[in-house]
This record gives sequence, structure tokens and C-alpha cells, in this order.
Amino acid sequence: MLNKLLILLLVASLTGCSASRINTKAEEEKLMEVSREWSRAASAQDIDHIVSYWSDSAFFLSQGQPAIQGKAGIRAMVEQSSKIPGFKISWEPIRASVSKSGDMGYLIERNQMSMNDPSGKTITIQGTVVTIWKKDASGNWKNVVDIGVHDLPN
Amino acid sequence: MLNKLLILLLVASLTGCSASRINTKAEEEKLMEVSREWSRAASAQDIDHIVSYWSDSAFFLSQGQPAIQGKAGIRAMVEQSSKIPGFKISWEPIRASVSKSGDMGYLIERNQMSMNDPSGKTITIQGTVVTIWKKDASGNWKNVVDIGVHDLPN
Repeated sequence: MLNKLLILLLVASLTGCSASRINTKAEEEKLMEVSREWSRAASAQDIDHIVSYWSDSAFFLSQGQPAIQGKAGIRAMVEQSSKIPGFKISWEPIRASVSKSGDMGYLIERNQMSMNDPSGKTITIQGTVVTIWKKDASGNWKNVVDIGVHDLPN
Repeated sequence: MLNKLLILLLVASLTGCSASRINTKAEEEKLMEVSREWSRAASAQDIDHIVSYWSDSAFFLSQGQPAIQGKAGIRAMVEQSSKIPGFKISWEPIRASVSKSGDMGYLIERNQMSMNDPSGKTITIQGTVVTIWKKDASGNWKNVVDIGVHDLPN
């Protein structure tokens, strides 16, 4: 009986951490899939759905624009963008990394943004975006920092 | 004897994870201090020291410039910048966040970059930078992603 208890305790002491061990590769793939879903959502023009990927206190940073913090400001930016004639945006994640604890991660993404010039001709700008993510209380990845640069000077 | 062993194993099973528990607040302060040290190093023009803060495979991203990956490319960029007449850069971290596992973190920083215009007059540009960090094998924070935007359009 004591021997069995000893073995049980030994197993517990050796595996005590394993329940909280995270499969970071799987989390990285999940994060890339969230990014792809978000890109598809961006083309569907459902503003509630688009905005749901950001955390409540997310930072959004872009060249020549004041930093935006929080969902209300981000929603206003998304609404404004959606009114630009010919506006379209899409992206693909190219690299993901998740912390050992699985509560923080980041993506490097390439994006394409199109809009019409005054004559109605489509202009397309390409760029690189870095997004940082945290798991919310329900275990869903939410974007906390979103910062991008364009390939060409403005 | 067996009782003592049982107690030891019980203690081990209950505390097995605590050795790896991280003080994230302390790590966040450490990360901000590394950022401040790096800013002081940037003004001292010691290129080896400046470059030592980036990891070997770090990404450096800035508006209108191709993405740079790896230390050789980053060193070339730092050398080139140091030759710009009147070039100066400094920054202050304004927010830090570290994962529960203490192996990944990020900073939001405000920076000031100065250089001389063709007439020799100083131009100063301010901006926001996001830096992502990972602990290396020796437990030192190294920058893995460095991306910034300026307040004013180029």
C-alpha cells in the first residue's frame, strides 16, 4: 500500500507540471489560422466581426497617424477605412511565435491594401505588419498590438 | 524512513512547478531597464554594443524600407545611420508586458530621431516603436522584432 502511494506521489511529482505544458507549435498554427480568418472577415465588411479580433485595450499604430488605443477608436478607424472608395485589405501570416506559457504570441504578416485614386483607378500598397496577441479569459487569442509599415515611402 | 520519503515526495509534487514560476512584474521592469540601457548605448556610438541587443535572427522593419532580417543586415543599417550628419536617436519605454513563462515580452516605446538638413539645421522626428523580446540561453532579453512608425507622414 505504501509502495503504491510512493509510486503515485513520485508520478505526481514528475508530471505535476505537465497539465499546464503548452503545445506551442499547435498554438502558433492556431494563431496563424486566426489571422487568416480575420483577413477573410476584413473583406466581408462586417464591422462588428472585424473589430472582435482586437482586445478592449489594443494599440493600433500606423505611419503618420496618432496611436489609437482601445476598441472605440479602432472601430472608428475601421468604419472610416470602409468608406474609402474601393477600399480593400487582406493579409497572410508569414511567421508565428508563441511563449512557452501559451498566453502571448506574435505574428509577422504581409498585407495588401487597395483603394481608388481620384480618377477611379485602383492603387495597391503592400506592407508588413506585426501583431501581438494575448489569450483572453475564454482562451481566445485577441490582438493587443497592431503596427504596420508600407514597402514604399508615403 | 518511508514516512519521511512520503513527505518529501508530497512536498515535491506540490511545489514541483513553483521553481519555474516567474515574477512577470519584475521581468517587465527589467525589460524597460534594458530598453533604457540600449537607448544610452545608442547615443554612445559603440556599434558592437548597440548591435548586441538584437538576437541573431531579429527582424527590423521601418516605413519605406525593405524588411531586414539578421544581425549582418541590422549592423549595416546601424553603421549607415551613424554616418548621417547630425544623426542621434533615443527612446523611452512607456509600456511593458511579459508572458507568464517569462520567455517572451514586448515594449511600446516613444523615440526621437534627429539629423541635419542640407543647410545643417537639426530636424527632429518623433515616433512610436514596438519591440518584441525573447530570453536567450543565458537568460538575457534579446530583441527579436523591432518596428516603428513616425508621427508625421514622410
